[in-house]
Amino acid sequence: MNYRAIFTKALEDLRSERRYRVFVDLERDVERFPYARRYRQDGTTEDIVIWCSNDYLCMGCHPEVIGAMQDAATRYGAGAGGTRNISGTSHPLVALEAELADLHGKERALVFTSGWISNLAALGTIGGLMPDCLVLSDQYNHNSMIEGIKRSGAQRQIFRHNDLAHLEELLQLAGDRPKLIAFESLYSMHGDIAPIGKIAALARRYNAMTYMDEVHAVGLYGPRGGGIAERDGVMGEIDVIEGTLAKGFGTLGGYITGDASIIDAVRSYAPSFIFTTALPPAVAAAATKAVRLLKDGANWRAQHQRQAMLTKHALSAAGLPVMSNPSHIVPVLVGDAERCKAASDMLLDRHGIYIQPINYPTVERGTERLRITPTPLHTDAHVAALVDAMVDVWKTLKLPFDYVENVVEFRREPSKGHCTFADFKKAAE
Amino acid sequence: MNYRAIFTKALEDLRSERRYRVFVDLERDVERFPYARRYRQDGTTEDIVIWCSNDYLCMGCHPEVIGAMQDAATRYGAGAGGTRNISGTSHPLVALEAELADLHGKERALVFTSGWISNLAALGTIGGLMPDCLVLSDQYNHNSMIEGIKRSGAQRQIFRHNDLAHLEELLQLAGDRPKLIAFESLYSMHGDIAPIGKIAALARRYNAMTYMDEVHAVGLYGPRGGGIAERDGVMGEIDVIEGTLAKGFGTLGGYITGDASIIDAVRSYAPSFIFTTALPPAVAAAATKAVRLLKDGANWRAQHQRQAMLTKHALSAAGLPVMSNPSHIVPVLVGDAERCKAASDMLLDRHGIYIQPINYPTVERGTERLRITPTPLHTDAHVAALVDAMVDVWKTLKLPFDYVENVVEFRREPSKGHCTFADFKKAAE
Repeated sequence: MNYRAIFTKALEDLRSERRYRVFVDLERDVERFPYARRYRQDGTTEDIVIWCSNDYLCMGCHPEVIGAMQDAATRYGAGAGGTRNISGTSHPLVALEAELADLHGKERALVFTSGWISNLAALGTIGGLMPDCLVLSDQYNHNSMIEGIKRSGAQRQIFRHNDLAHLEELLQLAGDRPKLIAFESLYSMHGDIAPIGKIAALARRYNAMTYMDEVHAVGLYGPRGGGIAERDGVMGEIDVIEGTLAKGFGTLGGYITGDASIIDAVRSYAPSFIFTTALPPAVAAAATKAVRLLKDGANWRAQHQRQAMLTKHALSAAGLPVMSNPSHIVPVLVGDAERCKAASDMLLDRHGIYIQPINYPTVERGTERLRITPTPLHTDAHVAALVDAMVDVWKTLKLPFDYVENVVEFRREPSKGHCTFADFKKAAE
Repeated sequence: MNYRAIFTKALEDLRSERRYRVFVDLERDVERFPYARRYRQDGTTEDIVIWCSNDYLCMGCHPEVIGAMQDAATRYGAGAGGTRNISGTSHPLVALEAELADLHGKERALVFTSGWISNLAALGTIGGLMPDCLVLSDQYNHNSMIEGIKRSGAQRQIFRHNDLAHLEELLQLAGDRPKLIAFESLYSMHGDIAPIGKIAALARRYNAMTYMDEVHAVGLYGPRGGGIAERDGVMGEIDVIEGTLAKGFGTLGGYITGDASIIDAVRSYAPSFIFTTALPPAVAAAATKAVRLLKDGANWRAQHQRQAMLTKHALSAAGLPVMSNPSHIVPVLVGDAERCKAASDMLLDRHGIYIQPINYPTVERGTERLRITPTPLHTDAHVAALVDAMVDVWKTLKLPFDYVENVVEFRREPSKGHCTFADFKKAAE
């Protein structure tokens, strides 16, 4: 048996389908975000502009967040030293969980080392503990949710994306058995938003539990950054809200919040939680600082939305096929894996603009896209340079323009000039 | 349907089986390790001595490791900003992977956010890509390995713990199909060590791949901290070595090392890797520093072994039932879940000594134990105080002593006095 040949063949398969990923080796620079240093394969470097970070609000670069990490490292060290049960429950982690429960108005929160694991652990446990449970899962749910549902052993039915009628049909058919509706508030590759209140109303009518992933919304939406559910005034109607510390909150880790009994059951039963070293106190302290800052971060969120809307407007006005949605995500359709990769490569090599290609299986074939994520620190000048670069790439590669439809509206206000963390501070005061 | 009642009942079940875990809320203090501040439920605090940390070598408290974390946070921020494919591949993380490949003498390494995920991702992918694969799994393999093997969909057969004859029998029966032997080098709850060279020889004879978990040994054993396989001179005979950054290396995360094609296949196929935010550059930099320090850490490792052997000797000489093994783990048998919890509680409340109880399902029923992990920073005086406290608890709770058997040998050398990180530095120079 030549084992190496098996793996070599598996990699060739990916290459032939244009799905082989090459990671871009980057050094972010907190003083100059969105600029970063890119290390080429030959060891040379160049400056590039990041346009695809999920550190949506740049909180990973915020001096107070970094300061909290450093201060906690000075006092408590670089790691947790064990699983939660074996000396790894640090006081900063306990404080973070209290902060997150407060953010979502829930009894309790539980932190994991990643959002992926939160979904695996929580859905795996909740679905597993409910006898004869039926999980109703949105068609576009994230991989981690699907893995969690499968891990639970519960029956799974998929409802069409954000389709209330289909969901209701499945709820009716299910009858009296325990039911769990699993969905996201904001779907990251499409940028569209779930009708949370209406899903919660269906859940009440048919006596189903609700589990909602808010990872692309926490910190970014709602008066205190509680997410879309907070913005829509329906946080209290969702049983379990899952979030991340690694996007809007700029650090690492995932979490769930909900009733004490549900959260305690996940804490007590999920092997992926029990047998994992806890998040370092320094990471927990940094995350707590980011959550606290964003509870007062309305102006920072507004600046984020402004730059996202400006980007959509400017790209669409130039005829680039921006895929319409009501969120901060700016997907631009290419529709072919190879050309999507080529567009991404040309943006990077010719224009120093980094936007990774989004291909199958992350999105459906034929809907390959560039996914752009403006931040509050992308200036109007950055946006203008992005538009020029993308128009050049679209023309060079003969990609289709879209001159007629969907120019995104944008009400230009007098420019406030370059946004910095000092503005964040001013806004919060 | 009263959903809350389902979870409340599940928690009651755990309580009635004495398996409900209460986490101890701790503040480690890098200046005073093994001392830490414990927060009681009522908000008051007290100083305790940690005797159950998996930060075996105290690298999480090492000033150079903390300094590396702080320096990287200053330059690159608090988080990675995305998955590995979406702007999250930081240069410090690339450097860490090179450092780990070098440590194990392998072509390539891949870092995950936890050891649990490394096993899920790697075993899940490797077992899944090999057609008709049979995984031969040691009876005492860690939960994360079992989850990975299950996730792979491959057939699994369990061989009796460290039993070469049983393993060979299963290899013979399996015939020509692809086979993967999955085992650990050092089993953390028992402290015993696998016959790695002999397992590798069987793998060669029957043409099987080998996957070995070294999480409780990396940093601690071998001339450069490469683990038991390095110590035994057999690193090159194992196909995939999995390790952790969260124990001997004092930080957070897990990794695998091996042939480029195998590692690249896991990188390219494992959803739990692909869809997870990367480890923050600051954590990667801290881990790299710990790995580098320990490549020159022979004296620090010797000091760790000395304190572990002294602890075993002193406890066994006092008649406490130390479970015999050849490693740094010091398990003391209690044999009953409730009394194990009571012993742990009394050590904490009466003596300020923190050793969590190890009960089912982590170990088999009837073998419940206290698991003690001495570090280089536990002084001879700490060991003496531990022995006194445990003898008091054993007498108070009328737990069985074991005066006859197994007094662990210890050759007392002239005391070197209290060990500090300055000694580490001196040793390295």
